Amino acid sequence: MTRETSALDLSRWIRDGDCGAIAQAFQGRHPADAARLLAELTPQEVARYVELAGPSESLTVFEFVPFELQKESIQHLSRDARVGIISLMSPDDRVDLVEELDEAFRDRLLSRLMQAEKQNILNLMTYPEDSAGAHMTTDYAMLRSGATIRDALDQLRLQAPKKETIYYVYVVDQGRHLIGFLSLRDLIMAPSDKLVGEVMRRKVISVHVHEDIEDVAKEMTHYDFLAMPVVDGEERLVGIITYDDIFDVMEEEATEDMYRLANLDTEEKISSPLHRSVKLRAPWLMINICTAILVAYSVHMFSSTIEQFVALAALMPIVAMLGGNAGNQSLTVVVRALALGEITDQSNWRVMLKELGVGASNGLICGLVIGGVSFLWYGNLWLALILWIAMIGNLLLAGFCGALVPITLRKLKLDPALGSSIFVTTATDVGGFIIFLGLATLLLRFLVG
Amino acid sequence: MTRETSALDLSRWIRDGDCGAIAQAFQGRHPADAARLLAELTPQEVARYVELAGPSESLTVFEFVPFELQKESIQHLSRDARVGIISLMSPDDRVDLVEELDEAFRDRLLSRLMQAEKQNILNLMTYPEDSAGAHMTTDYAMLRSGATIRDALDQLRLQAPKKETIYYVYVVDQGRHLIGFLSLRDLIMAPSDKLVGEVMRRKVISVHVHEDIEDVAKEMTHYDFLAMPVVDGEERLVGIITYDDIFDVMEEEATEDMYRLANLDTEEKISSPLHRSVKLRAPWLMINICTAILVAYSVHMFSSTIEQFVALAALMPIVAMLGGNAGNQSLTVVVRALALGEITDQSNWRVMLKELGVGASNGLICGLVIGGVSFLWYGNLWLALILWIAMIGNLLLAGFCGALVPITLRKLKLDPALGSSIFVTTATDVGGFIIFLGLATLLLRFLVG
Repeated sequence: MTRETSALDLSRWIRDGDCGAIAQAFQGRHPADAARLLAELTPQEVARYVELAGPSESLTVFEFVPFELQKESIQHLSRDARVGIISLMSPDDRVDLVEELDEAFRDRLLSRLMQAEKQNILNLMTYPEDSAGAHMTTDYAMLRSGATIRDALDQLRLQAPKKETIYYVYVVDQGRHLIGFLSLRDLIMAPSDKLVGEVMRRKVISVHVHEDIEDVAKEMTHYDFLAMPVVDGEERLVGIITYDDIFDVMEEEATEDMYRLANLDTEEKISSPLHRSVKLRAPWLMINICTAILVAYSVHMFSSTIEQFVALAALMPIVAMLGGNAGNQSLTVVVRALALGEITDQSNWRVMLKELGVGASNGLICGLVIGGVSFLWYGNLWLALILWIAMIGNLLLAGFCGALVPITLRKLKLDPALGSSIFVTTATDVGGFIIFLGLATLLLRFLVG
Repeated sequence: MTRETSALDLSRWIRDGDCGAIAQAFQGRHPADAARLLAELTPQEVARYVELAGPSESLTVFEFVPFELQKESIQHLSRDARVGIISLMSPDDRVDLVEELDEAFRDRLLSRLMQAEKQNILNLMTYPEDSAGAHMTTDYAMLRSGATIRDALDQLRLQAPKKETIYYVYVVDQGRHLIGFLSLRDLIMAPSDKLVGEVMRRKVISVHVHEDIEDVAKEMTHYDFLAMPVVDGEERLVGIITYDDIFDVMEEEATEDMYRLANLDTEEKISSPLHRSVKLRAPWLMINICTAILVAYSVHMFSSTIEQFVALAALMPIVAMLGGNAGNQSLTVVVRALALGEITDQSNWRVMLKELGVGASNGLICGLVIGGVSFLWYGNLWLALILWIAMIGNLLLAGFCGALVPITLRKLKLDPALGSSIFVTTATDVGGFIIFLGLATLLLRFLVG
């Protein structure tokens, strides 16, 4: 493909049915790059490309096309092309696709597939969304322990074209139980007349098919594995998860945590249409309205104090803002550490105590600065003192909630990031206003005196 | 290793110099798991383990020990053990370690290494921290195009023990220029009497040694590469980056973005001691104090309005809170999309317009709810109207700043997340208070009438 080939050219060739030009343009180009061009076309055009090039030819490119576009294009394919490409796709990718189709369409599609493929899809569809089973592929390379290394290499050559990876090879017994593991490096280094069973590593680390994919990602990054075998309840090998699946999982998990800390629905995408973004964000804002009313009420309680000393109205947002910021700092450090598995059940207390300590220290420092500024501004020593104490109190509260909320959510087996920032901000707002305005009410005669 | 081996056992064996017990405990256990046990010991104990087991024996485990502990242990090693283990470590890991040592210690260490290793370390140290060069390893597998496949496999068997991966093999000419690429899968599938040059893929995707590692991660996840070749300015192969490096990079980049959105220094860790966390967070809180004073001043300007109608003091935090939350939603969606490369220079405007649209819509909805609640509370229609308009105005501002700030930071070649949340929150606080209190001042006679 010359560097200048554009999505427009591609669109024209597809319209004209110019297979030759397309083949020439895609030849020697990485399928991921060809897919980048296709990603700019309409679902109808992508479908027509698949028809023109044929399922087996277009497959490598189609697998790199963004998921949403795959989903829409598949509906525009002729029946044969649709069945063709679904049969050829790798099991983990196609099950994601089939799951998203509407039920009637899915049933029609499944009824046309070969029995083995249909069964494979139906099996994979039974695993919950965030499980190892939902992310694994069933196209793994497999050997028997009785084979010689020479035979094993020959078998791998046969398996290679259809397998997701042949760099990690798993050894199973008659009952498909996982009994060993070999890397292709081990295989080509081993004397060719040895048996697989003599060379293989017997301690195989595997994950259960229902294990949370986030934990699988942690395991794979811990061991630096290229692939992880997945077994069922009877230790039978049922699939593998490869490093590129983990790339995707890590990206998704990071997005999820960031979105949850910002009170966003994890369904939202930058490409979501306006009305969908509004709909996804509004519920969180509604929750925020409830907490904001709580905050307003906490100020309302001190209306007469504010009426008598209106400077309080100007200064009170400072206490709340700093508390919110400090609380968010604690929260983010703790949420991230929980996601990376850096906090054990034993270290919960240490984390809480540390965040309290950081809150107290920074409250002391920031309180001094703000107290000082307010003294220069209003020349009122009592006001400065109240601000100082309120800052210490509110930053202590910030550290406390910032650590306690996510740790508690995890204890309850909930996502530590879910809704936690609304909770922490409400605590530091309500807390900040009550401490500050409460102190001011108690000491009002000194303040106005 | 029996499952019950604890860090305490290990500590005792190390103290007693019981090599046999340690070897037995570690045997058959994955080095990453052995390292997990070592991670609970003191640097002195880890150093003593390296001395007992010998550099070559302890290396595989030592490379999995957390970086901070590696750094401290190395200082407790005898001269010979230190030189031994540094020579054996993989180039990318050891350069990270050597860079962190204090200069005098580093010079003493370097002077004792073999010339080739010393040069390798010094070369790698020249690359900036976030570049491909700083993350690559120089232990890659390499072939010449004139070799037959049979010879190539023999060469790979010789190279295998010392190379980070042999699954992707690079073909270079006399001048070390990268001219082709083969996977081990290609190699074992090819007829053994063919030449490497006939079988290799000639279009090789590579990155430049100074390219930002975040962009390299994007490329590798785009192509699902197991390894990426790194070339210098003259297209000479100088190293490779492997998938496990990308695991680490993705984790770090996600942490960085989250930390920056929460105004945290990226140096901070959950394990940072109290005084260090205080020191790292205080500067951000100081910046926040400055913006908070700005916010306080914007309220102060309307003191007389608040004195005349004190309900405003209770209601004004609602406008600010909702604006802050909505701004943070926009900001997070845009920052994440920028990090994932989902926003192009052409789509900047579309993103801005959409966020404005979401702000206007949610402002309309939330404003109606809040206006309604305030009417029920205070029975004042003008107050409800002012709240409604202020909400629309502030959520428009939130969407505008939430998209504009990170997009502008990127245009200025800065990190889109850096300091952006302080900026957006200040805008929605100051903006919210000024719109709400300003409207109230203009319409004061209706409000109190």
